[in-house]
Amino acid sequence: MIQNFDYQTPTRVIFGKGVVDRLPGVMKPLGRRVLLAYGGGSIKRIGLYDKVKELLKDFEITELSGIEPNPKYDPSVLEGVRLCKENDIDVILSVGGGSVLDCCKAISAGAKYDGDPWDLITGKVRATGAVPIVDIMTLAATGSEYDAGGVISRTETNDKVAYIDSLLFPVCSLLDPTYTFSVNAKHTAAGVADAFNHVLEQYFCAEHNMVADGFCETLLRTLIHYAPIAMAHPDDYEARAEIMYACMYGCNGILALGNSQSGWPMHAIEHALSAFYDITHGEGLAIITPRWMRHILNERTMERFVNLGVNLYGIDRTLPAQEIAEQTIERTYRFFESLGLPMHLREVGIDGSRLREMAEHAKEKDLSQGEQYVDLTADDITAILTASL
Amino acid sequence: MIQNFDYQTPTRVIFGKGVVDRLPGVMKPLGRRVLLAYGGGSIKRIGLYDKVKELLKDFEITELSGIEPNPKYDPSVLEGVRLCKENDIDVILSVGGGSVLDCCKAISAGAKYDGDPWDLITGKVRATGAVPIVDIMTLAATGSEYDAGGVISRTETNDKVAYIDSLLFPVCSLLDPTYTFSVNAKHTAAGVADAFNHVLEQYFCAEHNMVADGFCETLLRTLIHYAPIAMAHPDDYEARAEIMYACMYGCNGILALGNSQSGWPMHAIEHALSAFYDITHGEGLAIITPRWMRHILNERTMERFVNLGVNLYGIDRTLPAQEIAEQTIERTYRFFESLGLPMHLREVGIDGSRLREMAEHAKEKDLSQGEQYVDLTADDITAILTASL
Repeated sequence: MIQNFDYQTPTRVIFGKGVVDRLPGVMKPLGRRVLLAYGGGSIKRIGLYDKVKELLKDFEITELSGIEPNPKYDPSVLEGVRLCKENDIDVILSVGGGSVLDCCKAISAGAKYDGDPWDLITGKVRATGAVPIVDIMTLAATGSEYDAGGVISRTETNDKVAYIDSLLFPVCSLLDPTYTFSVNAKHTAAGVADAFNHVLEQYFCAEHNMVADGFCETLLRTLIHYAPIAMAHPDDYEARAEIMYACMYGCNGILALGNSQSGWPMHAIEHALSAFYDITHGEGLAIITPRWMRHILNERTMERFVNLGVNLYGIDRTLPAQEIAEQTIERTYRFFESLGLPMHLREVGIDGSRLREMAEHAKEKDLSQGEQYVDLTADDITAILTASL
Repeated sequence: MIQNFDYQTPTRVIFGKGVVDRLPGVMKPLGRRVLLAYGGGSIKRIGLYDKVKELLKDFEITELSGIEPNPKYDPSVLEGVRLCKENDIDVILSVGGGSVLDCCKAISAGAKYDGDPWDLITGKVRATGAVPIVDIMTLAATGSEYDAGGVISRTETNDKVAYIDSLLFPVCSLLDPTYTFSVNAKHTAAGVADAFNHVLEQYFCAEHNMVADGFCETLLRTLIHYAPIAMAHPDDYEARAEIMYACMYGCNGILALGNSQSGWPMHAIEHALSAFYDITHGEGLAIITPRWMRHILNERTMERFVNLGVNLYGIDRTLPAQEIAEQTIERTYRFFESLGLPMHLREVGIDGSRLREMAEHAKEKDLSQGEQYVDLTADDITAILTASL
């Protein structure tokens, strides 16, 4: 049964080849003083940095570089907030992937707050203002370009916290698929796994509806079709564009409108992995996903597996439900594997020594509140992680 | 191949049982002086008028009633503009179906313009301001609740003009499916036909993409599944809710993102019918749709018919393409027919006497500019209308 919802995504998306040329027109109404934020320098290698600097030659630019994958509260968020305050920044321009943009969202709210930005990220204090954000995406994965959330890590406490506030929607996202041509196989695959998982997180819920299901299946089908093409032909525009477009809907809520809460359990578990081992988010999700699916498969959840298997993978509906469900899990596993993703924790440097600790962390930090589709105890999470070794 | 796009839908949608109770909170930030606009009085019969008046007892209400189906420039738009100006209206509240809301959009822009509002509607002058709009929908059909357009008719010149401006997005749409329980069979079916056609108008285009196709097929599937249930059980919440939700995406562009222009030819033709004979829009579309499909079916367009037939109707992909295409058209016809919709122009009071005149009108007014998926001459339109008799 369809549930009540309250929904808005105000972000403007400008998508396609050459759209970055529209940057000055997009930025001008927002102000002259720009914080230009980016990561490790890949935007310099692909010429995007020079292009942005040229396009913004009439703006005052302050730079924040070196934003990490799994972006860190210290130094990146703190440094960005300091730069915004010192330079009276009007608008933040994020150039890079979801990590850079997530970091910019925390900076955006932190810059308008007098206290410790961690108060905002943890929800202790509600933001009352935010510096407007524009982004240019160079990686198809997170959907951060079309949502109001971000995930920030704090190394010393193994925290990896999702921060969501409607003030944090980017004003405008510029998505040119050609800037994803240079993304290597590892990160292309991880991005697809991330986006694939976003959909599954929302698909697996108790109360769902036909529109939401169909939208979800559409995006999964698109990723399954185009990911191998993008892997084999990194500069195939159509494949890169369809993937980038599909990723955009991952986290803005449209896939779950009218659904009951799902709790995003796989993200909760992966956040613990990344918080302890700083692994690539999409790789962690690829490993967790089929093990979580297998762990929660039971009579009550069967319908979701069968629906997915029949509609997405074209599995014969007349087979026994249990068999359809098992094939669905297997097909999901094989899809990730076919992209060259690591499918075992050991492959990403995680051994069995801290599984229980991470399980308890995930349970306490992310799964202690909110409605879950299937309640997971620390024992459940430990079992999922053990099966993932 | 996916095309460039520039997309934004800022409207907030609050959906579900009981959401109208949130009206005062939604309205308060927009101002105290409200133009309450509605149609022929059905909102009084279902108790919604009294409820709204009670909820807004702390606001200053000016009323505009009697807005027509196929809303008229004169008197409704002109009267609304006058009321807005005289009463210095802060916010327009539309309570009713798409006709009331479309009318309110024209009023909204007209109220901030010193000249003749027709200049805005025809695009001769671009609006520079608009009174904010909030709506409560009582009919699932148009998608006006989530888009920036409206259609206004001018009787004396047989004009029925689509008016689109990004200033015209409602600030907030309140969609409670229970208010559609009382919609009779005729208008339930016409609403479904309208929404179904919105999807087809966008599906039939030269350059399309997998995400857009899947979203379109999802909505059509939802309408096909739930329309008969809503017809048989008018107070089935799930059916009414899924239909209302599916209709919402009809015209906000999401179904065509990355697609090439389609030109909305069936709407162009139907607007001529409504302009000359003032028929129910969805009924006109139900009649035109299968005849337009048959008229444009050829080798170049075949792929669209086959895709739709296989993905939506489950037609066997191994059949000859021509056969799949013909079955697709037949199935579409039978779906409309099964809802009790009139399937011939004569059933809605249109004989053969003015077909050529309407064809030329449609060609001149709506199809003379813009890219069409299949170019239609006045002869083509006449043939489609003749086949529809």
